[in-house]
Amino acid sequence: MTMARRDTYTPESLLAVAVEVFNRRGYDGTSMEHLSKAAGISKSSIYHHVKSKEELLRLAISRALDGLFGVLEEPGARQGRAIERLEYVTRREVEVLLSELPYVTLLLRVRGNTGTERWAMERRREFDHRVAELLKEAAAEGDIRPDVESRLATRLLFGMINSIVEWYRPERGGSASSEEVADAVVRTAFAGLRTTP
Amino acid sequence: MTMARRDTYTPESLLAVAVEVFNRRGYDGTSMEHLSKAAGISKSSIYHHVKSKEELLRLAISRALDGLFGVLEEPGARQGRAIERLEYVTRREVEVLLSELPYVTLLLRVRGNTGTERWAMERRREFDHRVAELLKEAAAEGDIRPDVESRLATRLLFGMINSIVEWYRPERGGSASSEEVADAVVRTAFAGLRTTP
Repeated sequence: MTMARRDTYTPESLLAVAVEVFNRRGYDGTSMEHLSKAAGISKSSIYHHVKSKEELLRLAISRALDGLFGVLEEPGARQGRAIERLEYVTRREVEVLLSELPYVTLLLRVRGNTGTERWAMERRREFDHRVAELLKEAAAEGDIRPDVESRLATRLLFGMINSIVEWYRPERGGSASSEEVADAVVRTAFAGLRTTP
Repeated sequence: MTMARRDTYTPESLLAVAVEVFNRRGYDGTSMEHLSKAAGISKSSIYHHVKSKEELLRLAISRALDGLFGVLEEPGARQGRAIERLEYVTRREVEVLLSELPYVTLLLRVRGNTGTERWAMERRREFDHRVAELLKEAAAEGDIRPDVESRLATRLLFGMINSIVEWYRPERGGSASSEEVADAVVRTAFAGLRTTP
């Protein structure tokens, strides 16, 4: 038996531990017992902070969604030509994904087995829809190539952005900075990798 | 108890059932019992075809890898300027991914808990490395924009391609054809979505 650590957690620091365990074991595969072990405090101490495992999930997902939706309210996402707003949102979305990496990773892996998961998927679809609308607007203004259908373009753009959670490891030396990754995504998606026509 | 169906499976058709279950439940979460139920034949009938669950995994992964590595041996991947070979490989890789969708999906989700999974990950890294080399060659020939680092460009390219398994559903009406998806990937990744500089 491990000696329980004195509970010095804040809601934020307990959440960080829970998200790490959720991402490692999967949300379904995580019990309150696993969380208690990882945090080094008793289950009743955890219940002092939150009502349930699902509440921890909701708090974590909210943090990711607040970051992503927040981008859409920034001036760069609301002013100017649609293509400029779309590039701005793409860049900022990559930055939020990297600064909130464990939280966004959890959001992207959610599968829909509980009410909170279904709510997360619904909000994520809503976000994707907002970006898709921006892309359509840019297409209508003639700034997006007409030979890639909007829905497909949106999916490939999100595919590129969301794949970052699969390989980006901030702790690894030599990893690209947040700004370098955001630049690379914007350049690749909007200007393409090819220098020659 | 369900009545066992008469075993009319070939190794190929049994494999198709197994891959569907692996993708739905996860490889770790699938038992021979689950496979027996899904196939409607007894466990001993399954053992008549294969030695173990891991052998089914190996056969399925081999099918995906044979398709992907096969592309690298095609004339379009071996002749011409590196950028042309890279675009050819990208297009064909998308086509193989779509024609072998369940097998490539399984390959991309493998996590490394068994010897077969570790071998799959090793072969996948080898494939990624071959494409990364092609991209580096194209960069050295001045055909890839110098302001996106090769490693990052390779990851974003694979991110875009591999994300297809998350949203492409061939059975859904109105889904883009294999050729449309391949065209969209090549145009987006190499020429970019923007029409205006």
